[in-house]
Amino acid sequence: MITVRFGERIKRLRLSKGISQEKFAISIDMDRTYYASVENGKRNISLVNIEKIAKGLEISLEELFREV
Amino acid sequence: MITVRFGERIKRLRLSKGISQEKFAISIDMDRTYYASVENGKRNISLVNIEKIAKGLEISLEELFREV
Repeated sequence: MITVRFGERIKRLRLSKGISQEKFAISIDMDRTYYASVENGKRNISLVNIEKIAKGLEISLEELFREV
Repeated sequence: MITVRFGERIKRLRLSKGISQEKFAISIDMDRTYYASVENGKRNISLVNIEKIAKGLEISLEELFREV
Protein backbone atom coordinates (compact mmCIF):
# COMPACT_ATOMS: atom_id res chain seq x y z
CA MET A 1 0.00 0.00 0.00
CA ILE A 2 1.26 3.43 -0.96
CA THR A 3 0.65 4.97 2.47
CA VAL A 4 2.79 2.26 4.11
CA ARG A 5 5.61 2.59 1.57
CA PHE A 6 5.55 6.37 1.94
CA GLY A 7 5.68 6.09 5.73
CA GLU A 8 8.65 3.74 5.55
CA ARG A 9 10.45 6.07 3.18
CA ILE A 10 10.10 9.19 5.31
CA LYS A 11 11.05 7.23 8.43
CA ARG A 12 14.26 6.04 6.76
CA LEU A 13 15.06 9.58 5.63
CA ARG A 14 14.35 11.07 9.04
CA LEU A 15 16.49 8.45 10.79
CA SER A 16 19.34 9.06 8.36
CA LYS A 17 19.30 12.64 9.59
CA GLY A 18 19.37 11.42 13.20
CA ILE A 19 16.29 13.37 14.27
CA SER A 20 13.51 12.13 16.56
CA GLN A 21 9.92 12.01 15.33
CA GLU A 22 9.01 14.69 17.81
CA LYS A 23 11.83 17.04 16.88
CA PHE A 24 11.12 16.58 13.18
CA ALA A 25 7.37 17.14 13.56
CA ILE A 26 8.02 20.33 15.52
CA SER A 27 10.51 21.54 12.90
CA ILE A 28 7.87 21.35 10.17
CA ASP A 29 5.07 22.61 12.38
CA MET A 30 3.09 19.37 12.18
CA ASP A 31 1.20 17.69 15.00
CA ARG A 32 3.46 14.99 16.46
CA THR A 33 0.81 12.29 16.67
CA TYR A 34 -0.37 13.05 13.14
CA TYR A 35 3.21 12.80 11.87
CA ALA A 36 3.70 9.49 13.72
CA SER A 37 0.59 8.04 12.07
CA VAL A 38 1.92 9.08 8.64
CA GLU A 39 5.19 7.23 9.31
CA ASN A 40 3.10 4.25 10.38
CA GLY A 41 1.31 4.27 7.03
CA LYS A 42 -2.04 5.04 8.59
CA ARG A 43 -2.78 8.34 6.86
CA ASN A 44 -3.67 9.25 3.31
CA ILE A 45 -1.54 12.39 3.51
CA SER A 46 -2.22 15.36 1.25
CA LEU A 47 0.11 16.98 -1.26
CA VAL A 48 0.59 20.13 0.83
CA ASN A 49 1.72 18.06 3.82
CA ILE A 50 3.93 15.87 1.63
CA GLU A 51 5.70 19.02 0.47
CA LYS A 52 6.09 20.16 4.10
CA ILE A 53 7.87 16.90 4.91
CA ALA A 54 10.13 17.14 1.85
CA LYS A 55 11.13 20.66 2.87
CA GLY A 56 11.81 19.49 6.42
CA LEU A 57 14.02 16.70 5.07
CA GLU A 58 15.67 19.24 2.74
CA ILE A 59 15.08 17.15 -0.37
CA SER A 60 13.02 17.51 -3.53
CA LEU A 61 9.70 15.76 -4.00
CA GLU A 62 11.36 13.74 -6.74
CA GLU A 63 14.00 12.49 -4.31
CA LEU A 64 11.39 11.86 -1.62
CA PHE A 65 9.55 9.51 -3.98
CA ARG A 66 12.72 7.83 -5.27
CA GLU A 67 12.27 4.64 -3.27
CA VAL A 68 8.54 4.73 -2.64
CA MET B 1 2.00 26.80 -4.85
CA ILE B 2 2.50 23.07 -4.92
CA THR B 3 -1.07 22.26 -5.99
CA VAL B 4 -0.71 24.53 -9.03
CA ARG B 5 2.67 23.09 -10.01
CA PHE B 6 1.34 19.55 -9.59
CA GLY B 7 -1.70 20.34 -11.74
CA GLU B 8 0.48 21.80 -14.48
CA ARG B 9 2.73 18.74 -14.41
CA ILE B 10 -0.05 16.19 -14.78
CA LYS B 11 -1.71 18.27 -17.48
CA ARG B 12 1.56 18.31 -19.47
CA LEU B 13 1.97 14.55 -19.03
CA ARG B 14 -1.64 13.84 -20.00
CA LEU B 15 -1.40 16.03 -23.11
CA SER B 16 1.85 14.33 -24.13
CA LYS B 17 -0.16 11.11 -24.22
CA GLY B 18 -2.81 12.80 -26.33
CA ILE B 19 -5.70 11.92 -24.02
CA SER B 20 -8.62 14.18 -23.08
CA GLN B 21 -9.29 15.05 -19.44
CA GLU B 22 -12.50 13.09 -19.58
CA LYS B 23 -10.97 9.98 -21.10
CA PHE B 24 -8.09 10.04 -18.63
CA ALA B 25 -10.35 10.55 -15.60
CA ILE B 26 -12.53 7.64 -16.71
CA SER B 27 -9.46 5.43 -17.24
CA ILE B 28 -8.39 5.90 -13.62
CA ASP B 29 -11.93 5.76 -12.24
CA MET B 30 -11.84 9.34 -10.96
CA ASP B 31 -14.65 11.87 -11.11
CA ARG B 32 -14.10 14.06 -14.18
CA THR B 33 -14.84 17.36 -12.47
CA TYR B 34 -12.63 16.41 -9.51
CA TYR B 35 -9.79 15.52 -11.89
CA ALA B 36 -10.24 18.81 -13.76
CA SER B 37 -9.97 20.76 -10.50
CA VAL B 38 -6.73 18.92 -9.67
CA GLU B 39 -5.24 19.93 -13.03
CA ASN B 40 -6.35 23.48 -12.29
CA GLY B 41 -4.39 23.43 -9.03
CA LYS B 42 -7.51 23.80 -6.94
CA ARG B 43 -7.27 20.59 -4.90
CA ASN B 44 -4.96 19.43 -2.17
CA ILE B 45 -4.94 15.92 -3.58
CA SER B 46 -4.14 12.91 -1.39
CA LEU B 47 -1.35 10.38 -1.79
CA VAL B 48 -3.71 7.57 -2.82
CA ASN B 49 -5.14 9.69 -5.63
CA ILE B 50 -1.67 10.88 -6.66
CA GLU B 51 -0.68 7.23 -7.07
CA LYS B 52 -3.83 6.58 -9.13
CA ILE B 53 -2.80 9.36 -11.53
CA ALA B 54 0.79 8.06 -11.78
CA LYS B 55 -0.53 4.59 -12.64
CA GLY B 56 -2.88 6.08 -15.24
CA LEU B 57 0.04 7.96 -16.80
CA GLU B 58 2.12 4.76 -16.59
CA ILE B 59 5.00 6.44 -14.78
CA SER B 60 6.57 6.18 -11.34
CA LEU B 61 5.82 8.65 -8.56
CA GLU B 62 9.45 9.72 -8.81
CA GLU B 63 9.00 10.57 -12.48
CA LEU B 64 5.67 12.26 -11.81
CA PHE B 65 7.39 14.64 -9.39
CA ARG B 66 10.42 15.22 -11.61
CA GLU B 67 9.37 18.67 -12.76
CA VAL B 68 7.04 19.65 -9.96
